[in-house]
Amino acid sequence: MRKFIPVLLTIMLILACVEKQESSSIPVPGKKTILDGLNHPWSMAFLSPTEALITEKDGHLLKVDLETKKKSIIKGFPDDLTDSIRAVHFGDNSGIFEVLIDPNFKSTPWVYLSYAAKKPGVGSTTKVIRAQLKNDSLYAHETLIEAAPYTKEYFHYGGGMVFGPDGKLYVTIGERLFWERDEPEIPIAQDLSDKRGKIYRLNADGSIPEDSPDLGPNADPGIYALGIRAAQGIAVQPDTGNIWFSEHGTIQGDEINILNAGANYGWPNVTTGKLRSSDYTPPKLEGVTFTPPIWFWPHTVAPTGLTFYTGDEFPQWKNDLFVPGLSRGSLWRFRIENETIKSAEELFVDDRVRIRKVRQSPDGKLYFLTDEDNGKLIQIIPQ
Amino acid sequence: MRKFIPVLLTIMLILACVEKQESSSIPVPGKKTILDGLNHPWSMAFLSPTEALITEKDGHLLKVDLETKKKSIIKGFPDDLTDSIRAVHFGDNSGIFEVLIDPNFKSTPWVYLSYAAKKPGVGSTTKVIRAQLKNDSLYAHETLIEAAPYTKEYFHYGGGMVFGPDGKLYVTIGERLFWERDEPEIPIAQDLSDKRGKIYRLNADGSIPEDSPDLGPNADPGIYALGIRAAQGIAVQPDTGNIWFSEHGTIQGDEINILNAGANYGWPNVTTGKLRSSDYTPPKLEGVTFTPPIWFWPHTVAPTGLTFYTGDEFPQWKNDLFVPGLSRGSLWRFRIENETIKSAEELFVDDRVRIRKVRQSPDGKLYFLTDEDNGKLIQIIPQ
Repeated sequence: MRKFIPVLLTIMLILACVEKQESSSIPVPGKKTILDGLNHPWSMAFLSPTEALITEKDGHLLKVDLETKKKSIIKGFPDDLTDSIRAVHFGDNSGIFEVLIDPNFKSTPWVYLSYAAKKPGVGSTTKVIRAQLKNDSLYAHETLIEAAPYTKEYFHYGGGMVFGPDGKLYVTIGERLFWERDEPEIPIAQDLSDKRGKIYRLNADGSIPEDSPDLGPNADPGIYALGIRAAQGIAVQPDTGNIWFSEHGTIQGDEINILNAGANYGWPNVTTGKLRSSDYTPPKLEGVTFTPPIWFWPHTVAPTGLTFYTGDEFPQWKNDLFVPGLSRGSLWRFRIENETIKSAEELFVDDRVRIRKVRQSPDGKLYFLTDEDNGKLIQIIPQ
Repeated sequence: MRKFIPVLLTIMLILACVEKQESSSIPVPGKKTILDGLNHPWSMAFLSPTEALITEKDGHLLKVDLETKKKSIIKGFPDDLTDSIRAVHFGDNSGIFEVLIDPNFKSTPWVYLSYAAKKPGVGSTTKVIRAQLKNDSLYAHETLIEAAPYTKEYFHYGGGMVFGPDGKLYVTIGERLFWERDEPEIPIAQDLSDKRGKIYRLNADGSIPEDSPDLGPNADPGIYALGIRAAQGIAVQPDTGNIWFSEHGTIQGDEINILNAGANYGWPNVTTGKLRSSDYTPPKLEGVTFTPPIWFWPHTVAPTGLTFYTGDEFPQWKNDLFVPGLSRGSLWRFRIENETIKSAEELFVDDRVRIRKVRQSPDGKLYFLTDEDNGKLIQIIPQ
């Protein structure tokens, strides 16, 4: 009898394999609210599969426990943080933005933060600092970049950050204008002596890498790319090492780009959308090459904190790009081969909500943050 | 030694199963051109997995062999077929439209055809006939519906057809106008005494089913739904038996609807888009309930010959709705639970082409027809 057992095993395994092949249709994923009561959360950084730092645009830097639901305010946030005035001014973008932890966080607990910093009576601008996190407090603050000038505009700070495969810190800084008619003679994003409307590449301590692209003698050190109106999402493509970033247009013109050293993405001289100031004509720029986007939408999405998925919980989504949208409450999934987008899927179209950021946990789970007064951390779950 | 063979088999199968689980990421499907040289093909009906009838909007009814690539013109097409004048008039929609074969084709070889029929000096309209197919010729023609009046407009004939789960023939008839300012006092699609802008439900011989919805004494017999501008795609949802149809808007307003008995889909009184005639205001209609679409796009797609996929070649697409688009060269895949669209994916965004119709073969393969002078039959293939 015993010699038949392997045979039985074999038959059982054949059946198991057949069964697996037949049931390979994939159910639509669901949503599960993990946390609520967040004040317009902007980004998050996982400290472990169940613990994370969350930035609230209109609130605090928090440490949250995804299991106990406990929220703790991290003390020692810089006191030059703007008081968000979005309650007064519609569309105010100021507040706390990105949070990253150091790739070697366990040895040196650096936390990287971008936010809108204020100078009383002068205005505000985008600022990036790092500080060490100990006992729920920030210590040993260092300013990495301060995107002077401080101005009265409170739009398009940018503030997206990511560590590249080269270990450098990439930072997006918005152009800050609402109306193109307020552009100076040389548009801000095209002016290499102006920090705004650019993407910077810095060493982790804020110093300028020696292998920075040469953009001429008048270029501000650290500028890596220019001609960018309002980029918030920036992420590394796992299988190529390319860095992708999202950009807000004005009337349409929402775009996805691949970051290249020294590239000029064209704002405001070229856009896939329309300018908001119908009376504005950008100046002719001689000898300038513009880099077109990889993708643009024919309608408004307000794409923001994107991420590439590399986990195992959704094997069918491996290496796909996820792009959340504010204006339509979208969550887009792009299937990509190298630098070519092959398909674009909008998920949860029956249950839309303003999404600011998509993040993957260390154990490969997929989460997003909703941009609401009662903001939520929501997990995407297999059905 | 021989007694170890089952053990080895078992180990090999375990490895096989593990392997299968690890490689469960799904590659992006590809395209393979099966046939070209088609003159703006509109639809197709499979006679076998490798043989099909294809209608050319600007040409003939063809029988094609997908393996030998042989094309034969089916003789005996009605001689009141309009000569397409799209070469002269941009956007002319006249020609041959849908082709279906009878559910019991093997016993009675009926072929159902819709096309733009002409009356010299008077105009054209949408006409549906059936005829028996023998030796590549049509015999025993019967007219099932003729959407009088014949008019000089050559737009929006409709012409979509499908057999419902009830065995009845559902036919879409377009409103025919280009400008809303040409609407009569009661808009065509809202006038129950006018065949245009409606969906009809007929017995296979063209007679009116006794269980037709009661739309009042003045309603033309056979009308099943109204208020429809320009529907071309119509298909049965496999898991619910619901009938879905696509509708062309004017400026945006492209929609997907679920067909309900007696329902009024609102054209031109309500639309998710804009009217083409800015100076036109539809009349107030008393005591009318409009049925909203299940889906609309915020941009123009020109959705047309849709289909639900039920095959096994793409198990992850089982029961999904595929909607081709003319204007952006789109192919959309909708994931649906009953009457709720859960996600919307645009496929092949890196290789756009005007697509008129998506069809599934009897052996579960997925094909589409491109709306081009050199029109193609293209198969979607797993990579």
